[in-house]
Amino acid sequence: MKGSALSQLGRRTAEPPITWLMREALVRPGLISLAAGFTDNPSLPVVETREIMADMLRTAKTGQPPLQYGTTAGDETLRKLTSRRLAQLDGRPAKAKAYQPSRMMITHGSQQLLYILTEILFDPGDIVLVEDPSYFVYLGITQSHGLRARSIPMEDDGIDLAHLEATLEALKQSGELPRLKALYLVSYHSNPTGTTTTSAKKAGALKLLRRYESHAGHPIYLLEDAAYRELLFAGEDTPSALTMDRAANRVIYTSTYSKPFATGVRIGYGMLPGQLLTAALRVKGNHDFGTTNFLQQLISRAVSNGAYEKHVQVLRKRYSKKAAAMVRACREQLPSSAQWNEPNGGLYVWVRMPAGVKTDLKSNLFAAALQQKMIYVPGNLCYADDPTRRKPNREMRLSFGSESIKNIEEGVSRLGRALKRVIQ
Amino acid sequence: MKGSALSQLGRRTAEPPITWLMREALVRPGLISLAAGFTDNPSLPVVETREIMADMLRTAKTGQPPLQYGTTAGDETLRKLTSRRLAQLDGRPAKAKAYQPSRMMITHGSQQLLYILTEILFDPGDIVLVEDPSYFVYLGITQSHGLRARSIPMEDDGIDLAHLEATLEALKQSGELPRLKALYLVSYHSNPTGTTTTSAKKAGALKLLRRYESHAGHPIYLLEDAAYRELLFAGEDTPSALTMDRAANRVIYTSTYSKPFATGVRIGYGMLPGQLLTAALRVKGNHDFGTTNFLQQLISRAVSNGAYEKHVQVLRKRYSKKAAAMVRACREQLPSSAQWNEPNGGLYVWVRMPAGVKTDLKSNLFAAALQQKMIYVPGNLCYADDPTRRKPNREMRLSFGSESIKNIEEGVSRLGRALKRVIQ
Repeated sequence: MKGSALSQLGRRTAEPPITWLMREALVRPGLISLAAGFTDNPSLPVVETREIMADMLRTAKTGQPPLQYGTTAGDETLRKLTSRRLAQLDGRPAKAKAYQPSRMMITHGSQQLLYILTEILFDPGDIVLVEDPSYFVYLGITQSHGLRARSIPMEDDGIDLAHLEATLEALKQSGELPRLKALYLVSYHSNPTGTTTTSAKKAGALKLLRRYESHAGHPIYLLEDAAYRELLFAGEDTPSALTMDRAANRVIYTSTYSKPFATGVRIGYGMLPGQLLTAALRVKGNHDFGTTNFLQQLISRAVSNGAYEKHVQVLRKRYSKKAAAMVRACREQLPSSAQWNEPNGGLYVWVRMPAGVKTDLKSNLFAAALQQKMIYVPGNLCYADDPTRRKPNREMRLSFGSESIKNIEEGVSRLGRALKRVIQ
Repeated sequence: MKGSALSQLGRRTAEPPITWLMREALVRPGLISLAAGFTDNPSLPVVETREIMADMLRTAKTGQPPLQYGTTAGDETLRKLTSRRLAQLDGRPAKAKAYQPSRMMITHGSQQLLYILTEILFDPGDIVLVEDPSYFVYLGITQSHGLRARSIPMEDDGIDLAHLEATLEALKQSGELPRLKALYLVSYHSNPTGTTTTSAKKAGALKLLRRYESHAGHPIYLLEDAAYRELLFAGEDTPSALTMDRAANRVIYTSTYSKPFATGVRIGYGMLPGQLLTAALRVKGNHDFGTTNFLQQLISRAVSNGAYEKHVQVLRKRYSKKAAAMVRACREQLPSSAQWNEPNGGLYVWVRMPAGVKTDLKSNLFAAALQQKMIYVPGNLCYADDPTRRKPNREMRLSFGSESIKNIEEGVSRLGRALKRVIQ
């Protein structure tokens, strides 16, 4: 039997590029991976989790509920705590419409919510607007579902609004606006560039989307992925798009407890406009009836007893030091013709190589780096397939999340040696 | 803005019927719900979980890995333990091809795996063969994805093979076999009828599917959902379809640790033919990168230290008593013109009302039962939308999983009173 029974989605879905990189890291001893998005291991909240577990499982009364099914939307206490925290972060009253717990759903990481949102909004051939570059796993989801991506170039403070307007206008002219469903922004310390989008840019983007809605014939949503928001280690937090005028009907806000607490505990959440929440909950029910109650109650307790907040502070300090070490190493080990950002949050440094140096998986630089026993995420993997522009191929994402400071320094030093070889 | 941005899937996905039932149970104090598929609360493994957590989180060395990301396929130790257990259950050598850990993936409950399999196998309009009646959440997934279901009537030992053959022949004649991708069987103590499919029936079904493959142009898979397999409390276990001739390329086997251990810990698993595993893992990566490591290591430890096996024994005894109580109550409280099965595993008793008595949500019986403060799952909800036959409407699913023996007796007694009123 040679034929395949796979569906179009089954055939279309490509291997995630990161899979290959992670496999390399596992099979090559001594390899320093600045590619993985893993988080810092030594600071994982082992003690905090042990104490919470002991308390939660002390009696049948407190121990049984986390071991039983919950609801599809998620634990009520956790939704209340989370929406209240979110309102606080945004400096808004907890009773404001956009922050109602009834608008929130809990998912197995915010990744699952991004997936469900893609399912309920997009048919194959529909259009999504993404930052250029953007989060490559999200790009993988869009590829799998047969979406068309239109990419909006980035400036230091977020997407180029003039380019967004020109794109919307072009879609209007070509009659394709009805296929456009959402603009996806990784708005805090973005993956991969570390960029944080300003309030002004969010408001501007939302206004533009609204202006073109009548030609679309339906709402065009602003999907704000705030996964890295709490990993801020310098400067001030930025209000989310939920603070904007009439945001409750147009802004989808997703975030997660996984990265700021423990990546092995996959608890994400989102605030959804009512029109989408109903559909998203039905699909979530079909996925898994609801997120594991056990983990929801672990996070709920960590937020309630202050362990979560304390842990975030610890993480901020650690990542601040790691980021500084990486930037310093870049300064010392890379030629001045290379460029990079100085992140004030998140897990990544985005590096642009000197002109003429390619960074993709088949490039001389990648091969040389592998020979030096270090890997990075080639920048081209973070660019959507968008026929209206060429993919840049001289950038890379370096993560300071999982490796030690010593390995970060050594890794960048190896990258420097690899680069020297390639340039010579 | 009146238009909706929802995708076809987003518009199509119906509210799960069980949602309404669960909401009723929450808002009506004193209601006895024999509808929910929740499991027994007092026997949840609080002590066992507490001990495992204390051990797992005792040191940084053992505590950090469960708090960190894992792999997309799932924890290697858990996959090894699970596939070895499965080979044992089936009485096969662990090294047999069908039981290789490399063929296994771990998911957030087996529900998530059923979802992913639907995604990778079926396009809208494709055909799935289901038992008549079948598991209603799976029917919800097929509805959401726009599949067409063809239902195969049930006999006491599984589907009617002659009807399966006639259906395959009809699909061949109409040229629709290329749209047929799989036959879905809930083969152990099924949800909803409690039926266990014999080896002979599984072998017969597999043979028939193979015979029609050349007309389909691709494999037609046997999807065996063994979620209730371990909740066997009388008689012998039945070998799975994995034991059949050349099964490794045609049988998809899914099962779960959630029901036999703790429903709040959502860990399911499946054995997949290689052609499907690759696609399923890619989609799983897009869903959530992999199942929560924390819960996988909890289950892995419970299996290793024997707590899991002991707990399953406890559950079997409890459910055996509860099932007996429910059957006894049916005998005492329902008229002899009603019929029911005597389950030897699982969580359900399937009851057929006397001729002329309807059971659907709008029926007089359902209203009368609600007035008596008891609810059941109307049988018609468990029948696929299949235009080739009328949905029966005089059955119900009663669950003995979550309520106490006292409430089971009282619930059936209330049902008896409601039935008397309706018949009079």
